[in-house]
Amino acid sequence: MINPILIPELKELIHTQDSETFSKFCQQTHPQTVAELIAGLDSEEIWELLRMLEVPQQAEIFSFLELDKQAELATIHSHREMARLLEEMPPDDRADLVQHLDESLREEILPLVAKAEREDIRKLVSYEEGTAGAVMSTDYAVLRQEMGVLQAIEQLRMQAPGKETIYYVYVVDEARKLIGFVSLKDLIVAKSSETVLDIMHTDIIQGKVSDDQEVIAKLIEKYDLIAIPIVDDKQILVGIVTHDDAMDIIRQEQTEDMEKFMGITGSHEVGDYLKVSSWDHFTKRIYWVVALAVLGLFSGMIIHSFESTLTSLLILALYMPMLADTGGNTGSQSASVVVRALALGQLRPRDFLRVIYKELKISMGIAVVLGILSYLKVVFISRGMEIPVGYSLSRIALVIGLALGIQVVSSTLIGAALPLAAARIKQDPAVVASPALTTIVDITGLLIYFTTARLLLGV
Amino acid sequence: MINPILIPELKELIHTQDSETFSKFCQQTHPQTVAELIAGLDSEEIWELLRMLEVPQQAEIFSFLELDKQAELATIHSHREMARLLEEMPPDDRADLVQHLDESLREEILPLVAKAEREDIRKLVSYEEGTAGAVMSTDYAVLRQEMGVLQAIEQLRMQAPGKETIYYVYVVDEARKLIGFVSLKDLIVAKSSETVLDIMHTDIIQGKVSDDQEVIAKLIEKYDLIAIPIVDDKQILVGIVTHDDAMDIIRQEQTEDMEKFMGITGSHEVGDYLKVSSWDHFTKRIYWVVALAVLGLFSGMIIHSFESTLTSLLILALYMPMLADTGGNTGSQSASVVVRALALGQLRPRDFLRVIYKELKISMGIAVVLGILSYLKVVFISRGMEIPVGYSLSRIALVIGLALGIQVVSSTLIGAALPLAAARIKQDPAVVASPALTTIVDITGLLIYFTTARLLLGV
Repeated sequence: MINPILIPELKELIHTQDSETFSKFCQQTHPQTVAELIAGLDSEEIWELLRMLEVPQQAEIFSFLELDKQAELATIHSHREMARLLEEMPPDDRADLVQHLDESLREEILPLVAKAEREDIRKLVSYEEGTAGAVMSTDYAVLRQEMGVLQAIEQLRMQAPGKETIYYVYVVDEARKLIGFVSLKDLIVAKSSETVLDIMHTDIIQGKVSDDQEVIAKLIEKYDLIAIPIVDDKQILVGIVTHDDAMDIIRQEQTEDMEKFMGITGSHEVGDYLKVSSWDHFTKRIYWVVALAVLGLFSGMIIHSFESTLTSLLILALYMPMLADTGGNTGSQSASVVVRALALGQLRPRDFLRVIYKELKISMGIAVVLGILSYLKVVFISRGMEIPVGYSLSRIALVIGLALGIQVVSSTLIGAALPLAAARIKQDPAVVASPALTTIVDITGLLIYFTTARLLLGV
Repeated sequence: MINPILIPELKELIHTQDSETFSKFCQQTHPQTVAELIAGLDSEEIWELLRMLEVPQQAEIFSFLELDKQAELATIHSHREMARLLEEMPPDDRADLVQHLDESLREEILPLVAKAEREDIRKLVSYEEGTAGAVMSTDYAVLRQEMGVLQAIEQLRMQAPGKETIYYVYVVDEARKLIGFVSLKDLIVAKSSETVLDIMHTDIIQGKVSDDQEVIAKLIEKYDLIAIPIVDDKQILVGIVTHDDAMDIIRQEQTEDMEKFMGITGSHEVGDYLKVSSWDHFTKRIYWVVALAVLGLFSGMIIHSFESTLTSLLILALYMPMLADTGGNTGSQSASVVVRALALGQLRPRDFLRVIYKELKISMGIAVVLGILSYLKVVFISRGMEIPVGYSLSRIALVIGLALGIQVVSSTLIGAALPLAAARIKQDPAVVASPALTTIVDITGLLIYFTTARLLLGV
């Protein structure tokens, strides 16, 4: 890659108003790289640099800046110039920006935007967040089926500068209804005597404007598409979602899952950790933490009901944490594997019995290993302890080991079952968050522990 | 989408040997869809259907089948026909398949493959798994810089059928050194008098053949690329990685992170949950579980050292689980947020102090809320319990609440610090898995708990 021009050099270009050099540099360099470089300057300086370029090029680089940066820059730019910039920006990026602006600023700039683009913006921001409509671009290339192949390529030549992509082209009728799809590759290799109708695909993979964005991203991923057309309920083509959008959606989705799994609530947006305020971080986490504390009342009450058992054999109290830990670990392991498999489409709720059977085998193996280990642990750690008459350390250790083994099997099965149950009732499996799971297996673990002790030790 | 032809209808096509209908269907339908449909048939039937097509089309559909299915089908196909199929398959998919075959089968088929393709296969399977070399395709389009744009487009017309993509084209010199990049869009909109040299970009975003696949995927994601060229250390072009590969890599990466976070070891491959044997699942999980059990020795020994404290005030034993749970939850929350932020590039190890400061504020808020809640919990749950002379339930509850508050702050900070420390020593932050974290904060939590009790209650 070209040695990036550094901040001091950029400032020099501004000082000498050297638009030629800057312009050439931008021609040669990926707009993402240019955006990264200029983001380090003051807002005023950024505008001075951008003004050296034609508005379309300004818009391209601008749309690669962080959304917060874009909004900040919008506040100091003249409204007219901002309107011109919006007209040239990719439709999906500009819709995102408009939604991000203060309402007062938005209402001052929008009336200055040319009618067609203004209508486009209003339409895109009207779609519900998280749907295909909210992420799509309206800059797609269309052709008519009667066109000859050469005429079609000529059309695309002219349309190219303003389109998100010309590699995938959509064939529509007079009512703008989507009737076919053809790729630029198809057009290039076709015989010049052929028409679009001859070579177009009618089996089109598409999405609805109201579809969840994750559904769209999964389609793009499954069929290795560069873009996917989005239609309304009358089959009218309204936009496209491209492969890069799909990747962003997948990233967002992963963050959401991970956070849900850890009991952190929040919105779809992938907030930047350092930029999100401590207060917002706090509110995202506190709900779950309090909910779990309340749930923890149950474990507290269960322990209390076995107070006599504990008073008789204090040694049992010493190993409660070990039971809790082990249950939490094994349960989380099976839960995360199942959540992942569900997310990747490898499992469906109806696979419930197969999963339980599999996890039963796995957990029994783990239970045997851990049961033996914990027996040895108890015998070793508590070797100096006074044991009440009628009991022996070995017998107690056996009971604890047995209880642990049962706990392992129980928590593994619960960990595997809960995500499947959640999916069955159309809830997000990842919301069976690790913290909730840990609390549940604590409760069941305590019951297993004390019941086993009562039955086999008579306490 | 066209109504997919169902299994009964497919069997009918085989029975009547109706290659024309099947061929037409495949022309119209995305190969992914065809692959899904035929996957439900017997292996023999699948081959009968595929034989109705030209080998290139067979190969395209075949490469969309699951790898296990491909390998199974390879065992019953004649070696010669399999060799022909391999010659037509996309290079990266065929390399994956060849590695997946039994060694004996591989050594019988490969000698029958045409020399050029055989060399290509040997080269691709030689790269280390998880690197760019192991995922790249060798079917890329190249041009010479002297070519006129019309000649270039004509070249691409001819090269198109055999290439992974012709939308991104790479300009090389006689030594096949990568010197430029031009897109099909650039070529289409250029003036016919221009040459490739005039319009090509020299600032090329590229990857090395030894780069980690995640690095490559992140580049594709960052720059919204359709493909990225891969060069060796002499800058010679050796392959390309496409956007769909990038999406697969990101998915794999996410699964790995999630599993590491839950303490499940394993390979890069995203194994299918139901297909991975119970034994393999077991071995993946058992290491961590045993390691944690061993670590749990420490918590066991710590508890034992405070045996006298527990004997004096049994009530303290009853709330150990609550402390463990809370520590595990808050620690996991901060850890997952930090791991995520690191993965998304929002944080770097040097942000350590900023993160600690932020988490300090957040955790103190949570600590206050939980401290109060736990005070109320203890006073409520243990209201009927006999308290030794010299103490009061209220005072004990206060101490427990205080200890819990300190535990919350401590475990949140540990949860945030560990991933950063891991990243600092170039380890994967996600390997600071939730189970390991829980065990660590258990140990620190127990120390906090008993020390606080000793200091403030004199036990």
